[in-house]
Amino acid sequence: MSKIIMNHGAGGEIMQEFLAKHIVSHFPKAGADVPLEAMDDSAVIEDIVFTIDGHTVNPLIFPGGDIGKISVAGTVNDISVMGATPIAIACSVILEEGLDIEIVDKIMESMGRTSRECGVPIVTGDTKVMESGALDKMVISTSAIGKRSKLLDDDLKVASRYRKVKDRWCTDSNLAPGDVIIASGTLGDHGVALLSFREGYGFESEIQSDVTPLNKMIAEGLKAGGIVTMKDPTRGGLANTLNEWCSKSHVEIEIEQASIPLRAGVISACDLLGIDPLSIGNEGKVIIGCVPSMADHVLKAIKRTPEGRNAAIIGTVKEGKERVIMRTEVGGKRILEPPSGDPVPRIC
Amino acid sequence: MSKIIMNHGAGGEIMQEFLAKHIVSHFPKAGADVPLEAMDDSAVIEDIVFTIDGHTVNPLIFPGGDIGKISVAGTVNDISVMGATPIAIACSVILEEGLDIEIVDKIMESMGRTSRECGVPIVTGDTKVMESGALDKMVISTSAIGKRSKLLDDDLKVASRYRKVKDRWCTDSNLAPGDVIIASGTLGDHGVALLSFREGYGFESEIQSDVTPLNKMIAEGLKAGGIVTMKDPTRGGLANTLNEWCSKSHVEIEIEQASIPLRAGVISACDLLGIDPLSIGNEGKVIIGCVPSMADHVLKAIKRTPEGRNAAIIGTVKEGKERVIMRTEVGGKRILEPPSGDPVPRIC
Repeated sequence: MSKIIMNHGAGGEIMQEFLAKHIVSHFPKAGADVPLEAMDDSAVIEDIVFTIDGHTVNPLIFPGGDIGKISVAGTVNDISVMGATPIAIACSVILEEGLDIEIVDKIMESMGRTSRECGVPIVTGDTKVMESGALDKMVISTSAIGKRSKLLDDDLKVASRYRKVKDRWCTDSNLAPGDVIIASGTLGDHGVALLSFREGYGFESEIQSDVTPLNKMIAEGLKAGGIVTMKDPTRGGLANTLNEWCSKSHVEIEIEQASIPLRAGVISACDLLGIDPLSIGNEGKVIIGCVPSMADHVLKAIKRTPEGRNAAIIGTVKEGKERVIMRTEVGGKRILEPPSGDPVPRIC
Repeated sequence: MSKIIMNHGAGGEIMQEFLAKHIVSHFPKAGADVPLEAMDDSAVIEDIVFTIDGHTVNPLIFPGGDIGKISVAGTVNDISVMGATPIAIACSVILEEGLDIEIVDKIMESMGRTSRECGVPIVTGDTKVMESGALDKMVISTSAIGKRSKLLDDDLKVASRYRKVKDRWCTDSNLAPGDVIIASGTLGDHGVALLSFREGYGFESEIQSDVTPLNKMIAEGLKAGGIVTMKDPTRGGLANTLNEWCSKSHVEIEIEQASIPLRAGVISACDLLGIDPLSIGNEGKVIIGCVPSMADHVLKAIKRTPEGRNAAIIGTVKEGKERVIMRTEVGGKRILEPPSGDPVPRIC
């Protein structure tokens, strides 16, 4: 009999196959604008953008953040990368009997602070308790809803001046040859900070998680105009995001290794641990696809925000096979494979 | 240092105090129509009804249902009791490494079937895996959104012919003296079925869980007109629901013990186990408050549906102290206390 393995929840190809076969296949198809089968960051139904995420990060509190901050920022970001404005959050908290209430207070305080920071209120919730031993301390599932705004309409109007735009939301299938790919900042920080802290490697003194809500930064990008798609590269990192885009938009993406923002500490930690920084999850970054003529303008707008100060153009979209080609720093080319899963378990 | 106890998630007074002090207090206040602080079945923001529930029921599959059916029916019911029409569900599934995939398939199939049955699609989701030993098999958190419908407008218009109605949704604070209380069917079935099955008492041969989506039955009630509030008596059962209404609507409620629908098997099981069927959770029942002149009409409409065939008028709302008085079958009166929690743990 087949059993659940860690990679079934690790965001890569193995998870995609598992979800398609054992979860999504059992559910009836809905007439949503962006349906479940699209497996995008959020669904859209009757112009309401709707998303949910379960959070199992271990440990609960880590350098740069905690499960409460991730759970608010994560759903706010999932709504925002569709081009929508998040308006409310719902949270389901499941606690282990015997957990210190002081820890609950710390995590809930952090959720409240993050909610205040991004201006998206937590409007409803539910709390359950499982007996001691039935759960490792705490999990939090958060859902969020968002609405269409004039910002997105104007943004897509700008993009439409240059080429036909397929979807009216920033979906994974909205890229076309010629589009430019922007990363909003350094990649791999979250996964490396968490792994290092957990395993005691010592890199955590310099590398902190990047977890943060990105709705304000994204609004600045949309104001610049011409963005056609966005995704937050969480589980499976940049490699997963770009490969999903290639297969859903039926394009090839070419990226320049030298232009990918990476902290020196992340590079050396990944070298030492034998993991790829491009396959590790991030919690405060967004990858953007925009029409070529607006790329510099969008980049500038993003760079003016605190969350986007290290943003960079990292590649372009081509006609070709559904794959990601990376031009290496030594002048070669290699395929950036879709990861089977995230190399670091329970990072979100 | 204070620790989490099972009753912090058991739906009664201890939970209410814990939530107010350690969860809700940390979150910023929102300008929602029905805000977090109202602690109602759902929140309402910009006319979108929004709810979330975590599901930790043990065992995953039990007589009459399973965690998948509960997770869909539960959120659909939380939207419906506000008087709204549920339009979409989001699900967050968290799995334990090593769990049989066959069980996942069974649960997801049940979610799909329930979603099809009630006509509310699952439009988005998320799956995580925790390592073996970090979670007892599986938890599912589901969120749902709903919209205002003409049905609710018309229903409240009818109620307004007889008296002023405070809220424009079916909130806990909408009752007034004179209103009639209806129970949609037999109480205690879910909790007794689950406890008996789990502990091997043998009652489960006759008592099955009542878990079911109630949106269609509720729509029939609204069509009759005059309903001002509804609540599904889950954790803490009828005793919890009525006491919440008393304190939020500032009224006294008087119920007739003899008119409360209870299965003989539930009565004898509860006698034997020393638990109160009125404090046990239900998953397929609704308690309704409506204006007196429309009570018989609403009752008939509910009784015509399969889920409401055992519905009965069980009491009336009075001016008085914020408490529930029960007229006993032997002619006496006693106060139906708000339960400290549900006597049966992990029933939903």
